[in-house]
This record gives sequence, structure tokens and C-alpha cells, in this order.
Amino acid sequence: VADLFQGQLRPVDVAILGDRIVGLGTYQGRTTIDCAGEVLLPGFIDGHIHLESSSLTPLAFAEAAVPHGTTTVMVDPHEIANVAGLRGIRYLLQASAHLPLAFCFTVPSCVPASSLETSAARLSAQDVVALLREPRVVGLAEMMNVPGVLSGAEEVLSKIVATGERVIDGHCPLLAGKDLCAYRAAGISSDHESSMVSEGQEKLSLGFHLMLRCGSAAHNLDLLPSLLNPYSLAHLSLVSDDVTAVDLVHNGHLDALLRQAVSLGVEPLQAVRMVSLNPAHHFGLRQLGALAPGYQADIVTVKDLHSFAVTRVLKAGTLVYEHGGRCVPLPPPVAPPACLLRSVRAPYLQPESFRVRSPRREVAVLGLVPGQILTRRLQLPLPREDGYLRSDPERDIAQVTVIERHTGTGRLGHGFVHGFGLRRGAFGMSFSHDAHNLIIVGMNATDMAEVANQLIALQGGIAVCGEGRSASLPLPIGGLLSPHSAGEVSAGLTAIQSLLNHFGVHVSDPLTALSFLALPVIPELRVTDYGVIDVASQEVIPL
Amino acid sequence: VADLFQGQLRPVDVAILGDRIVGLGTYQGRTTIDCAGEVLLPGFIDGHIHLESSSLTPLAFAEAAVPHGTTTVMVDPHEIANVAGLRGIRYLLQASAHLPLAFCFTVPSCVPASSLETSAARLSAQDVVALLREPRVVGLAEMMNVPGVLSGAEEVLSKIVATGERVIDGHCPLLAGKDLCAYRAAGISSDHESSMVSEGQEKLSLGFHLMLRCGSAAHNLDLLPSLLNPYSLAHLSLVSDDVTAVDLVHNGHLDALLRQAVSLGVEPLQAVRMVSLNPAHHFGLRQLGALAPGYQADIVTVKDLHSFAVTRVLKAGTLVYEHGGRCVPLPPPVAPPACLLRSVRAPYLQPESFRVRSPRREVAVLGLVPGQILTRRLQLPLPREDGYLRSDPERDIAQVTVIERHTGTGRLGHGFVHGFGLRRGAFGMSFSHDAHNLIIVGMNATDMAEVANQLIALQGGIAVCGEGRSASLPLPIGGLLSPHSAGEVSAGLTAIQSLLNHFGVHVSDPLTALSFLALPVIPELRVTDYGVIDVASQEVIPL
Repeated sequence: VADLFQGQLRPVDVAILGDRIVGLGTYQGRTTIDCAGEVLLPGFIDGHIHLESSSLTPLAFAEAAVPHGTTTVMVDPHEIANVAGLRGIRYLLQASAHLPLAFCFTVPSCVPASSLETSAARLSAQDVVALLREPRVVGLAEMMNVPGVLSGAEEVLSKIVATGERVIDGHCPLLAGKDLCAYRAAGISSDHESSMVSEGQEKLSLGFHLMLRCGSAAHNLDLLPSLLNPYSLAHLSLVSDDVTAVDLVHNGHLDALLRQAVSLGVEPLQAVRMVSLNPAHHFGLRQLGALAPGYQADIVTVKDLHSFAVTRVLKAGTLVYEHGGRCVPLPPPVAPPACLLRSVRAPYLQPESFRVRSPRREVAVLGLVPGQILTRRLQLPLPREDGYLRSDPERDIAQVTVIERHTGTGRLGHGFVHGFGLRRGAFGMSFSHDAHNLIIVGMNATDMAEVANQLIALQGGIAVCGEGRSASLPLPIGGLLSPHSAGEVSAGLTAIQSLLNHFGVHVSDPLTALSFLALPVIPELRVTDYGVIDVASQEVIPL
Repeated sequence: VADLFQGQLRPVDVAILGDRIVGLGTYQGRTTIDCAGEVLLPGFIDGHIHLESSSLTPLAFAEAAVPHGTTTVMVDPHEIANVAGLRGIRYLLQASAHLPLAFCFTVPSCVPASSLETSAARLSAQDVVALLREPRVVGLAEMMNVPGVLSGAEEVLSKIVATGERVIDGHCPLLAGKDLCAYRAAGISSDHESSMVSEGQEKLSLGFHLMLRCGSAAHNLDLLPSLLNPYSLAHLSLVSDDVTAVDLVHNGHLDALLRQAVSLGVEPLQAVRMVSLNPAHHFGLRQLGALAPGYQADIVTVKDLHSFAVTRVLKAGTLVYEHGGRCVPLPPPVAPPACLLRSVRAPYLQPESFRVRSPRREVAVLGLVPGQILTRRLQLPLPREDGYLRSDPERDIAQVTVIERHTGTGRLGHGFVHGFGLRRGAFGMSFSHDAHNLIIVGMNATDMAEVANQLIALQGGIAVCGEGRSASLPLPIGGLLSPHSAGEVSAGLTAIQSLLNHFGVHVSDPLTALSFLALPVIPELRVTDYGVIDVASQEVIPL
């Protein structure tokens, strides 16, 4: 049994009564689970995750994550909030009850994230207050509106005040110095965006709880060995932020982060603290994160502290997973409200809608940065055809178009992107941070229109078309989530990835990369239904 | 500036606005305090202290402790609660407001502590609930009723339930194994009674926050080096529990503990964590315990991390102490309620009241253990005079008598004690755990009666009489507290100590030792107004 308070393994029995651990020692129970030769760890806690990035419902996510030892996730339902506001969040609250994995929630603090894209919903300070009253809501989610905090914007401050004594999570990539101090002084006590050791050190020294990410989108775990010492140990967590169904099925969840941390030289039980006791402390959940009397009996057994191969999971005292099989029946799926099932409100499009003119010789092009969600601003000349700007497969430049899908305007914003490797066809999806409009990348207008019309017909999803071939994954719940299992979603994504590769795409996770291209709060260039956005100046750059 | 999150000193300015730290870096302010060459630490927090052991009012305690860097104390007002119940606690709450030292309170959980002594007050579960609503009350104080917890006594459980999400402090000397597990499983999350490394290790492994004491009564700091590692660092605090005015004036408070921890080889900033961030975390006080933006500006400047010589103290952004002098006016003292000023209700006594007969050849004698508050049970023959048992200075055996002073019965309980070294005269006091009846030790009935009558005349205090000489310190507030300063109280105590030494007393702190002799919850023998108590069997042993 892992003793995270002293960093040792102890050969003892764990006595459980109801949902609690009541003893460590030598016990006889009515029921005995023999774990000889295995290591008992506290159930893993993901301190920051956007469930929607998995494309899974809470039920399907639980089914896929529990076998990897996850017993609690702190969900920021930011995506569904942008699509369906309070109703979207209440659906997730309802759909995540009574599962063998505890879903706690933070209330999205920045919906909409930007006025430079059209989103469906707005969460007011009043909505935030209403949600903070829900039992599984533990605080305010990542405060991305850094300028709003620094300028003391009234709506931002009223949300912070409403959170009271609960946690306010942060999101402040590259923020430093006096601005970082002011942001911390506003009561924001965590950050999960550090990408450099010096950034992590500055944030630690200012009292931030540092969440290091290793999800499907961003990888910052390599900072860990440089940041870890006896003082910082209690102030570090490992989180996924975003994890796709493919990664969940093939790599795992927090168990994968543990393997990676250990491979970086971190002591196994120190790594375990970062996915158990530390996030529990950060959120003030005194009954979670350790194996000791009084703690909730969330227990994971693993073969060893190297593979972290999970053999068994107990949630609140109940054996929910053992040796490859589920031990408890899952509740039936919760039906989404009608508004979530009719969330793509856009007219069918002709190829002409995707043709773009420009008076300029050079246009601003979004430059992908491999492995990061930042983009670089490129200024490049583009070929023309009949007076229209044209994609250029030879120079790896594709058109990217966003179609407003919430309010029925059908507004299109166009731009160009470098770095996908696409040579033929088009692909697109309705999962596109943060407003989740339709975003489509393509080499020609015909295929782009075909992808758009497929997404509209599916009422959301992911599609790739070209040369008479196509692959798609429907995401009919808010245009974000599939009603199917992680395995089915993973298979669908793999088929899409395979066709994308056939069309020349070489970035390792093109869908995640695409999903961030419309987010006008991350440097340097983005594209929304208003067109290309310069993030620094928060202005539209005309083509 | 100490960075407790990474264990380093950083050469930065601390920006303060109002009561908060708002920045670390390079700042210009309206007012500047030049701390060049000194080290800035967070204000020291005592996680567990009985104010009454200092014999000081909150005002006088603050005046004496602030110059030693203390900015917050977690007071368990157990003594005044035994004497005056709710009214006593409310007096301390009122008298501790608006001082340059923050007094937080835990609600006494065990008043009375025992039915084997007569106390003035009872705190019901209802009273506990009422007190938990007060703003500076942070939890339930040390749960000494271990048998009550283990047997699931309804009144004990109702107090635990009433505490809700707040902290329940523990008190479980030598408790181990399944009993310790059950005690922890009841929600009790700290202990400050560990006296052995193995005891501390077991408690840490079961999830207890371990408070190591170095007060005037008990000294357990030597366990620290064996218990400290990167995992346990966050789960250890240093506390005083009991500190006398003499120690406070001459040795200091938490600064003395820091000096001692460092002399034991502990890294200075790890020791500092144990009197700042760690106790703050334990009590869920997120705004206390570190120097970072958003934290309350409780700051101590010290000359170095070896002497911990305090040069300056800021409380909530205000400079309250600098270079030997107070910087802010203190509020006027709060007048105690009348019930506290007339708390000794006992008739004047003749020497005959102190004469004891016994049919036995040998009697049970309380054996002091140097440096500990435990006693050993001795079985010794006593000399007789006119048929009465007699003290025996040659064999270091003195009579000890407790006089009920709350309800007016004037009931006397007699016993004998070995180990004070007293050869002549008598001494006694009205501060006597937990019921705070009058307790008197002496070599003859005449001097014992003289001490008793002085204590009654003073309406509480400490007195020593013999051979025509006497010394006394009045404690007229509940028989526990002096209205005077720490310096005056310390001088009074020193005069008493000096006369006690003249009378042969050789134990290092005879008054503290005496104050615990009536506490029938600490092994092995005690004496109360009912006579000698066998703690294990909870029975009176007839002389």
C-alpha cells in the first residue's frame, strides 16, 4: 500500500466500510480481495480536463478511463458551454452522475472566449453563481481572459468574487513579471500552460499550483525533473487538459503520464502524488487522494511502479474494474436535450462560397508549429486562378474556412494555413475551439463544400473528402460528442487519420491542430467566421 | 524573500496593497520599508496553543509574541471553557479582536474532560455548533475523548458531525493500530502528542497532520529529523501547545522552535514551512503562510536563518513591530465578564482540612517523570503522625490536595506525589488541567491551608508559602489569566520559582508539572477533588 505521506510501500491490509477506508493493518473482512504482489495506489485524479476533447459522453469516457485507474476528473465543460450554455453544462452534470468515475466540474469562466468569433452562448456572472451551487462543482475554470483580469473588468471580477473560497484555476501562457503577479493576486491559484522551466519556476514562486500537461494537444511533462524538489512536490499536478479517444484507448490516461514521469527519472510515488493527493489538496477535497483511514476508498491496484499496469479499480469502496472487465453495470445513457441534437444551423453550401479574392500580393498565412498549439504569422504570396486565391500543395499551403453554425448567418471567414502537408481533398469538423463553428481545410472549393455539407448533414462531426473517397465520424451531441464507445470513436478517428495521411497530411495530430486554429486567444494568427485574426492586436486582417 | 514553494531566497521587492501582497519583483511604492540584508519570511503561525498556559490576556500575549514573529495563533480555549463555558470563550473571542496578532479558535471538544473531577462548565454539541458559526473559529479542538470516539459515543459523534468540512484536531498519545485507524477514520486529522519516532511515523502513514511540540510542557522536536523527508514535509507543523510567560519573554515563541529545528539539522526554509504554509494548509487558510501575490501581507523580517532574530513584523500589510518597538497603538483591554472575576467559590480552610488518615501500610503515590507530563504509579509506605499520613521530605514525597472551587462544595481530594524535591512549605494554584480547581502541594497542613486561603483571597492565582515567606501571582480572570503584561507575569513567576527552589524544588518547571497533576486523562495516576485517580481504570483509589 502506497504511503504518500512518507514515500514508502507498506505490506498491510486495507479495511473498507461502505465508501471509506477505515483501517490499514491486519484485518478480516466479510469480503476479501487478494492483491498479493500488487501495489495499491489511490485512484488517479485528473486536475484539469476538457471532456469534449475525447468526443465521448461521460458514460463512454468513464468506461474507457476507469480501466486506466482514473477515479476522479475535474472537468471544465468549456466546449459544450460555448455551444449550449447552461443547458449544455447541465446535460453533462446529469449525464455524469452515478458513474464509476467521479466527475467534478469547474465553471467555465470565459464563455464566449472572444468577441472575434460567433459563439452560441454566453455564461454571465449570474450563470456562474447558479452553477457554483451545484454539488459537484468545485470552483471556477481556467481564467483565460487575462486582459480582463489585469484591467479589472467588472464581469471578470464579479465571477471571481462569486467563487468565494473555492478554487479559481488559471490559464496564462507566457505571462510573467508584474502582470503575472497581478493575475495571481486576483486569487487565481493554478496554471497549466507552462512550456518552459523558467516559466514554471516563476509561477511556482508566485504561489501557483502548477499543472503539467501531457495530453493529446500539449506536452510539458519534460519540465518536471527541473521543477521538482522537496518544496515544490506538494504544488505540482499532472493533467491531461485534452485527451482524444485514440490516445485514451491506445496510450491510456493518467497511467500514461505516470509512466512518462517515471521514465523522466521522477520517483514513482512522487509522480503518484501528482495525480492524487496534490490535485485533491488543490481543490480542497480532503477525503480524496490517499490511502488512509477516513479517505474515500478510491483504490487502483497496479502490477508495479514502472508499467503502472492497472489490474483493479475500486471506486468509493466498490470494485468497478478487475483484470480487463467491468464489475458493475453502467446506468443507461442520459438523452441529450433537443437543443444539443440540432446544433448545426447553417445552410448547405456551393463550392463558390469557398472562393476568395484578394487585392494583395502577399497574404497573412497561419503557420503551424509542430507539437504546439501556437501559430506563427507568415506573410506569403499565393497563386491565383481566375482571379481567386488558390491553395498551393507544393508549398504546403491550404485554404482554411470557418462557417458560423450557431445563429444561422452562415457567415464564412477565410484564411490560409501552412504546415498540414495536405496535398489533395479537404477535411473539417464542428469541434473547433472555442466557438465550435465548422472549420474546414482544403485544397479546392469542391471538396471543401462537400466536407461542409457532410458536417451539416451529420449535425456535427468530423469529415474528410477527396478523389471520390470520404471518411467521417458523426458527433451529433452539440457537434462535439459521439453517442458511441471510446473504441468506436477511436476506430472512426483512425480511419479519418488514415485517409488524411493518404492525402499527404503529415502532422502527428492534424485534428487537434485544426481544432485550435479558430481560437483567437492563442498567438499569433487564427481564423474565425470573421476571417484571419491577429491575436496580439485582436483585429481582423483582411485577405 | 523566502520562496517556500521552491526552497530558495529571492532578491525581490514585495509589493503590498491594503492587507495583501500584490507583487514580487521590482516595484516603487508610496511607502518603502528598506529590508536590505535581511530575510523576509511569512508571519509565523502556531497551529495549536492554549492561550491560558501563558497566564496572559490576548492583548498581553500579542504584545509579547508579535516581537517574536508570531502573526497567527490557533487557540484552543480549553481552560477558560472548563471554568466559564461559552461565556469564557466569548470573552476570549472579544478580547482577541483587533490585535496585531490574529487569534483563530478551535472549539473545545471535551468540556468537561472527565467526570472524575468537578468542573464548572459543560460544552454541549449545541454549544459547539453555536461557536462554529463565529467568524474566527476554524474547527473542532483536540478530541481527547478517545474512548468516546472509539465507542461511537453519541455526543462525541454529534460534535464531529457538526464540524462539517472544517478541521478536527486530535490528541491521542500512544494510540496505535486499529484504534488509531478508527480514530483517524472518524475524521480527526491531526495529532500533537507523538513522543516517539515510530509513533509519529504510524500517525503520518495514516494521514495525520503531525504537529511536533516544543512548548513549556512537552518537548518532541527531537523527533523531527527522523520524520522529515520530501513526502512528509507538507504534513508537519511545529507548535507550542503550552508556553509560559517566562518562556515567551526569555526564549521566544515560534522563533525559538525554528532555532531548535535548525540546530537539529533541518533546512531553515523547511522549518519555516512548518510554522507557516503547513499549518495554514492544515486549517484550509489559503491566504496565509507564504509570501506571494494574493496572500495576506503577514511578513516577518529576520537577521538570518540561524538566529531568526526578528527585526520587523507586518500584520495584514501594517508594520506593527520594528527594531524592538511597537509601531501601532493597541486597543484598550476588554473587561472580563463578572463571572470570570468571581470564579473561586470555596470556603477558607483550617489546617485540619488537610490532614489525611489511611488504614493502609502503603498508598498509591503519583511519581513525576522528569520532562514529561505522564506520571508513574508508585506504591509506597508513608510515615504517620498522630495517626495521620505525613509528607516525607527525606524521600521526596509531598502531599497534594485538590479543592473544588466551582460549585461551592469545597470538596477536598488528597494524594501524595514523588519527585518535586520540595522540602519545606507549600505551593499551589488555581490553574490546574482541566477543571482548574485549586491544587496544592505541601510538606505540612499549615502551609497548605495558608496557600489555599491566599488563592481564595486572590480569586485565583499562584502562591507559595513557608517559613514566614511567601510569593504569589494573582490570576483574577477565571483563576487563569493575569491582567498584566508578559514581563510582569514573568517576573512574578520567576519570584515564585526562586522561592520554590529555596524550598528545595528541583524540577525544571514545577508549576507546569503541578498544573497537569489533576488531569485524569493522562496516564498513570492523577489527583482530583475526588482523590487519587487510576487513569487506566478511571477509578478512585482510596488512600
